[in-house]
Amino acid sequence: MKDLHSRFRDVRNYTDAIFRPLAVEDYIPQPAEFVSPPKWNLGHTTWFFETFILQPYDRKYKVFNENYPFLFNSYYNNAGSRILRSRRGDLTRPTVAEVYEYRKYIDEAMRNFILNDPGKEITALIELGLQHEQQHQELFWTDLKYTLGLNPLFPAYNGKIPFKEITEQKEMKFISMEKGIYDIGFEGNGFCYDNELGKHKVYLHNFAIAERPVTNAEYLEFIEGGGYGDFNLWHDEGWKWVNENEISAPLYWYKIDGKWMNHTLKGLKPVVPGEAVKHISFYEAFAFAEWKGMRLPTEFEWEAASDRLGWGKRWEWTQSAYLPYPGFRKAPGAVGEYNGKFMVNQMVLRGGSVATSPGHSRKTYRNFFHPDERWQFTGIRLAK
Amino acid sequence: MKDLHSRFRDVRNYTDAIFRPLAVEDYIPQPAEFVSPPKWNLGHTTWFFETFILQPYDRKYKVFNENYPFLFNSYYNNAGSRILRSRRGDLTRPTVAEVYEYRKYIDEAMRNFILNDPGKEITALIELGLQHEQQHQELFWTDLKYTLGLNPLFPAYNGKIPFKEITEQKEMKFISMEKGIYDIGFEGNGFCYDNELGKHKVYLHNFAIAERPVTNAEYLEFIEGGGYGDFNLWHDEGWKWVNENEISAPLYWYKIDGKWMNHTLKGLKPVVPGEAVKHISFYEAFAFAEWKGMRLPTEFEWEAASDRLGWGKRWEWTQSAYLPYPGFRKAPGAVGEYNGKFMVNQMVLRGGSVATSPGHSRKTYRNFFHPDERWQFTGIRLAK
Amino acid sequence: MKDLHSRFRDVRNYTDAIFRPLAVEDYIPQPAEFVSPPKWNLGHTTWFFETFILQPYDRKYKVFNENYPFLFNSYYNNAGSRILRSRRGDLTRPTVAEVYEYRKYIDEAMRNFILNDPGKEITALIELGLQHEQQHQELFWTDLKYTLGLNPLFPAYNGKIPFKEITEQKEMKFISMEKGIYDIGFEGNGFCYDNELGKHKVYLHNFAIAERPVTNAEYLEFIEGGGYGDFNLWHDEGWKWVNENEISAPLYWYKIDGKWMNHTLKGLKPVVPGEAVKHISFYEAFAFAEWKGMRLPTEFEWEAASDRLGWGKRWEWTQSAYLPYPGFRKAPGAVGEYNGKFMVNQMVLRGGSVATSPGHSRKTYRNFFHPDERWQFTGIRLAK
Amino acid sequence: MKDLHSRFRDVRNYTDAIFRPLAVEDYIPQPAEFVSPPKWNLGHTTWFFETFILQPYDRKYKVFNENYPFLFNSYYNNAGSRILRSRRGDLTRPTVAEVYEYRKYIDEAMRNFILNDPGKEITALIELGLQHEQQHQELFWTDLKYTLGLNPLFPAYNGKIPFKEITEQKEMKFISMEKGIYDIGFEGNGFCYDNELGKHKVYLHNFAIAERPVTNAEYLEFIEGGGYGDFNLWHDEGWKWVNENEISAPLYWYKIDGKWMNHTLKGLKPVVPGEAVKHISFYEAFAFAEWKGMRLPTEFEWEAASDRLGWGKRWEWTQSAYLPYPGFRKAPGAVGEYNGKFMVNQMVLRGGSVATSPGHSRKTYRNFFHPDERWQFTGIRLAK
Repeated sequence: MKDLHSRFRDVRNYTDAIFRPLAVEDYIPQPAEFVSPPKWNLGHTTWFFETFILQPYDRKYKVFNENYPFLFNSYYNNAGSRILRSRRGDLTRPTVAEVYEYRKYIDEAMRNFILNDPGKEITALIELGLQHEQQHQELFWTDLKYTLGLNPLFPAYNGKIPFKEITEQKEMKFISMEKGIYDIGFEGNGFCYDNELGKHKVYLHNFAIAERPVTNAEYLEFIEGGGYGDFNLWHDEGWKWVNENEISAPLYWYKIDGKWMNHTLKGLKPVVPGEAVKHISFYEAFAFAEWKGMRLPTEFEWEAASDRLGWGKRWEWTQSAYLPYPGFRKAPGAVGEYNGKFMVNQMVLRGGSVATSPGHSRKTYRNFFHPDERWQFTGIRLAK
Repeated sequence: MKDLHSRFRDVRNYTDAIFRPLAVEDYIPQPAEFVSPPKWNLGHTTWFFETFILQPYDRKYKVFNENYPFLFNSYYNNAGSRILRSRRGDLTRPTVAEVYEYRKYIDEAMRNFILNDPGKEITALIELGLQHEQQHQELFWTDLKYTLGLNPLFPAYNGKIPFKEITEQKEMKFISMEKGIYDIGFEGNGFCYDNELGKHKVYLHNFAIAERPVTNAEYLEFIEGGGYGDFNLWHDEGWKWVNENEISAPLYWYKIDGKWMNHTLKGLKPVVPGEAVKHISFYEAFAFAEWKGMRLPTEFEWEAASDRLGWGKRWEWTQSAYLPYPGFRKAPGAVGEYNGKFMVNQMVLRGGSVATSPGHSRKTYRNFFHPDERWQFTGIRLAK
Repeated sequence: MKDLHSRFRDVRNYTDAIFRPLAVEDYIPQPAEFVSPPKWNLGHTTWFFETFILQPYDRKYKVFNENYPFLFNSYYNNAGSRILRSRRGDLTRPTVAEVYEYRKYIDEAMRNFILNDPGKEITALIELGLQHEQQHQELFWTDLKYTLGLNPLFPAYNGKIPFKEITEQKEMKFISMEKGIYDIGFEGNGFCYDNELGKHKVYLHNFAIAERPVTNAEYLEFIEGGGYGDFNLWHDEGWKWVNENEISAPLYWYKIDGKWMNHTLKGLKPVVPGEAVKHISFYEAFAFAEWKGMRLPTEFEWEAASDRLGWGKRWEWTQSAYLPYPGFRKAPGAVGEYNGKFMVNQMVLRGGSVATSPGHSRKTYRNFFHPDERWQFTGIRLAK
Repeated sequence: MKDLHSRFRDVRNYTDAIFRPLAVEDYIPQPAEFVSPPKWNLGHTTWFFETFILQPYDRKYKVFNENYPFLFNSYYNNAGSRILRSRRGDLTRPTVAEVYEYRKYIDEAMRNFILNDPGKEITALIELGLQHEQQHQELFWTDLKYTLGLNPLFPAYNGKIPFKEITEQKEMKFISMEKGIYDIGFEGNGFCYDNELGKHKVYLHNFAIAERPVTNAEYLEFIEGGGYGDFNLWHDEGWKWVNENEISAPLYWYKIDGKWMNHTLKGLKPVVPGEAVKHISFYEAFAFAEWKGMRLPTEFEWEAASDRLGWGKRWEWTQSAYLPYPGFRKAPGAVGEYNGKFMVNQMVLRGGSVATSPGHSRKTYRNFFHPDERWQFTGIRLAK
């Protein structure tokens, strides 16, 4: 169990490492319903272990504060009532220091619990909690970026950023894939989410898929070429979205004195042509592909070709809606609310991003967002 | 060309037959954005022929009224600007009589045009216009039902209704289908929409699909069994929809003095146990299947098994999102706006309903609506 | 009682005379919540006599249709539940013909009831019903104008319009009034509303008030002088209203090919410079006065000076909020809901308009609307 | 000028004294558009001196940070563009420490400026800035209370609260006032706002006004007597407000285990019967008076009787709309935006509250809020 605890400690410490450079002020605001304040994020990932491990399985465990579950439950109906999602930014208390105490208390309780050998089933639940925390580590970056992004002072993150963009620009080549039956989905001993199960067969027709994602330079051609103004390129709902929100560039891009600038975690910087474009909605990804006379790959094409692709720096929109695989059954109870109940009105993303925690993604991983969301590090890969 | 004109006349006359029994008052209101007033419906189906056939291809054609395109265009950006969709019910003019004159004028022009042999490509466009009108014939019934349905007087349709429900109730049997590669999509000489093209291969795993749709009696068990109150059965967005709209039964159902009643086109009637349930959202169809421990079929499973199913009385929700088939390309210009631009956030329905005009559906036909819509004759078929 | 019945018949016939020229289509739509469809207007004024006279006081009276009260009650909580105000335009039934039958039935019942000498108190209630109907005669014109006004065909009213604008333009002269105590409010034997009671004293300082209302020509100077773009002229809420609704001229004015046009009850006509400006919100009236370096009169100044003013062609916005007079007590029951419950967030208008029914206004009459409303024949008189 | 600077320092220090006990977390959230986060409040009151005194009149003054005006302007159109009011709670930067540095910088600059004898006109502007800051001291309490009030942990203010409620309960006596002409409005040498000018005459009829405000005990009778459920007591818009917001008690009151509790600045406490009721909307004040068979006083009655009333612990709703006094002219430029542009749709409050800064109120003082607002210390005084 030492290994499990060492892994537990590593993941929890990584959270600490990226949150600690924040000022207290940074922990509080929630500028949009989809953003979680860092304070809430810290409390929620801790609540997960308290609620799903310590309370049901550790007889000696005493609750830290009986009001916290109401504050830190996200969307688990099976785990009780909770504060409105849109109200997370209104909470002045508990203070940041109190939430760190809560983390310390839970870490200590988890340490004792883990070292007492929790057994296979609970170990799997703990691993789920760690994977869950890694997802929130990525959300930390995207939520923080969104909050900083609304500030007219163009502030930057105070600490060291543990990831880097690739900026080299190669010609876009396409890999040809043969028609036939392919195996899709996860199989094996490691961790995966229920939505990746089980391994099943999919028939694919001949297709070609780009080796690398679309760059800022390529996306700029679409902008300058009038892509945001040509309704024929857009879904009907995408066209409405563009017009109602007056969208004309990726999120965080500003044209200042004739030059395209990008509000990054390091502050306002010029747009780098060779970087993969990011903060793109599905609507934009689709319209860009239309403009190129191509299309987005399906998630099955992506997975079938994944071993030959350079991926992992962007979440890539696919042309697949987020739906259950054949034979999908959600787990009973709260843990079953993790994935299945979101399988409508969302599109699948594949890959992983620079902000994805180390070791957290794999080729069968299915991420999903609504087609208008773009505060994640979302990008485009073309297919034809 | 006599055949084409005879088909043209038949479809147009059928429209006349179902609209004429209305009172003038019935032609006007638009109680929800998704409803089209019958007057608008009449004008729009006529405008389609004027805009896509007569104006571009008939040199002698003189426009009936230059303001009508603005009033009767639905959503074709390529065909110019148009009145807001939500404003169709605010129009007192043109009068109903004037719209009938417009129809007569266009019918006469089309007659001359068709008898002059328009050639193969234009003939295909005319056929598209007729299929389009048949779709609006079905919308006539569903929109009218919705408008009558809001009236506390429980009014009925004045005329003769040209269709009938099946009310016999058989035990629900399941057909077993073998895993393997199946051909999906349209191939042949008859008419089809671009979204049914082209024929392609899909791998299916073993599955079983019900011979008949779910009945009112079966759905009542779900209601009485607390299905609308158990969040574990619902999508997250479905659960929000149920609660925000206080949904507790199919559309048009009322429990009056302890008895379930149904506001039908013939007025208020008791719910008939043996009828296939209708006016169900995708969210409800999904929750019902969960409650049964089963699922909805995919559109591919449905099509593969269709020759062995009793279908055609309900549009049936599938578990498939509305997405392009491999190789889908939309047509250039306005006609290309027919299908492709709606391929996001909608679910596929298969089958056809009692209100579908004769000969209008086929096994490859793909209908599609948002998961919360239920004013169509939508029902449920189970799979496992 | 013959006199009362002759008055009853006159008022009811006048309603008939102005409604009858409409096409059936004109009776139905409700393009905004504040507009009542003519069909509803007809039914509601009839319901008033049924509910407040015949049902409580005529023992022989048999209800025409027990569902009508639900449909035709406007806002009287004491008179039972009612259809949502915003749903009046969704009703295809009862038909227009049925509502005319309802009127005939009530007219007949009222005739018998009146000729049987109802006594003084009920006679006063009948008079209230007639005054109420006259208010709805004026609303008929303003609501119809609003509905026609939304139609891109610029339609006109079909019948003869029983009123006329004054178009002669005199220099604007101001009447000086001396400071002192003035008597305000109604006293006497004729009819008045409860909000005009009772006669009371108000101290006024020296003031001057314009002899005639502001004309279109004068208002055009304000438009061309940039009045709609200068925030210093506007209330904070007025400025928000101007910007959110993109207001830049009176309602129904359009600048077409460089010329100001006006969609009137007779169709689209050039703006007539000498007419008193109309369809102006309180916010606009206030901003115009600011721009002139003047102000609007209070309702007390207006009433004190009224005998020396030319009034009656426009409802004139005053600088007075709609509040109770000293000693105001609302009547018990439903009739008490007529005025008192609206005494918040509204501004007083004085005068009367071209569309006011003959004999309906007087110098103590207090009309009231929200400061953003402008579908009434509202105008401006200056004071200083 | 030493006196002016000593007054300047006192007001600024008082701000410091009440803000300093806050945790950093308390400075950030904005749970409703009408609430200002304490950090913003601190910056805004400082910006006022920078913008209206130092920038125009102190030649040596160097701007502290050129982005701050955009962040800290409230509603002065003449002072340039500004961040959306609803976005004040989304700002993580500047930090709280940086805003305190800004205050220190401005205090130092103001000190030098004041000691150099700014002249009479600018001295008056400085006095306006101090009065403005005192208003924001009161807003500090009400805004903080609102933010704490949304927190399910029922937190309390950390520091010492410099005011106290009166809890003794005397019988409610009425003072009779004679009809006649009364002088209303400010006259004299001290400070007053433009909306209190100038002294003018108002005629009042005989009236009686209560010596003390309504208590919690008296208001509880209204609650228990069904006042929130009887539509006859309410304005039409008040009734809508009660129902849409499910209002059934003053703000911050909760019935817990059958006992009425009050979330105060000291945490959750039992409702004290003898305290004057507070956190009441105008709609509630009006309904309460109706229920008592009385009414609210007008602002003129209140002022005429004020020398004989015990006032100063509550802002008291009057029956008067917020309108200009005879001869009111707003000052040119930004300072003129202080009062005049809000004179629509608001009701006048008279008195002052426990949270009003010492010496800030007077009998001619006119406060004003929308009729649905109740996060101020608003109460009720009866008249008849």
